[in-house]
Amino acid sequence: MKTNCSNSVIECITNRRSVRVFNSKKITTDLLYEIIDNAKWAPSGKNGQPWRVKIISNSEVINHVGLLTPNSPWVSKSPTLLAIYLDKSHSYNYIKDVQAIGAFIQNILLISASLNVSTCWIGEILNYAEDANNMLGINNEELVLMAMVAIGYSNSSDSSNRMCLDEIMIN
Amino acid sequence: MKTNCSNSVIECITNRRSVRVFNSKKITTDLLYEIIDNAKWAPSGKNGQPWRVKIISNSEVINHVGLLTPNSPWVSKSPTLLAIYLDKSHSYNYIKDVQAIGAFIQNILLISASLNVSTCWIGEILNYAEDANNMLGINNEELVLMAMVAIGYSNSSDSSNRMCLDEIMIN
Repeated sequence: MKTNCSNSVIECITNRRSVRVFNSKKITTDLLYEIIDNAKWAPSGKNGQPWRVKIISNSEVINHVGLLTPNSPWVSKSPTLLAIYLDKSHSYNYIKDVQAIGAFIQNILLISASLNVSTCWIGEILNYAEDANNMLGINNEELVLMAMVAIGYSNSSDSSNRMCLDEIMIN
Repeated sequence: MKTNCSNSVIECITNRRSVRVFNSKKITTDLLYEIIDNAKWAPSGKNGQPWRVKIISNSEVINHVGLLTPNSPWVSKSPTLLAIYLDKSHSYNYIKDVQAIGAFIQNILLISASLNVSTCWIGEILNYAEDANNMLGINNEELVLMAMVAIGYSNSSDSSNRMCLDEIMIN
């Protein structure tokens, strides 16, 4: 099906791509705060806002996190990582809250893209959550690691593709 | 913290609000297809694209779905519902795929908002998924109901609020 609608929101959503190769320029903490402070307007069940974020900017820690993700060796070279947690003390239904975390992460990716900041959503780290928490000094059992997001600047992006609409629709 | 960045993507994310009172104008199927066809550019683990959508436009069915959600009586009066499913046959990690569904739903909400179309993410229906599936004739065990989205036109929207950034950041 040919789509006809277009505006800057749709263009951002359809043109955003994962980036796994960053240049050396680091994103400022102020800009990270701005991205997160806007991304928090994601919806969540009963407005529980279960998302929590830890910024990882120390290159040695980033290198160690990267060693945890053998299928994603590029992670070690990321300039900055955001570790995204679900705060179970603000959760009322785990599945709905995990969805809300997904909406929050998508906001981070879209806001970043709108500001020419590159990102990649890292799911593989969930397989090594305990090691990652130890590395980051997270020992609060209410905090469940949901993902990391690599974030920085790049001149390149990955290509991607999507199914046809017919494969998505249930008749 | 005062945020300084602004553009139409950030404005859409921060100004979007849930809408629970719709007028009688129905959204066209073509526009629904456009919204979904753009929303499918959400990221997902291993690009599995596990989201599936069923459009519910029959007012009798909508009324019955509304009766399943006693805490959300307004659902019965929605002009159109989108039932969002996770296709387990395209899933590789349930938690990551549930997050991807959240990113996909957020895209639907944002694209709609950018087109002056109103929405509300309905989580309560998950408590009555079996009844909802029976009502919709969904008997494919690979399809797991994740949410419904009410969608249409409105002149009003709910108010909402969010935590301070300090409450989100992990030091």
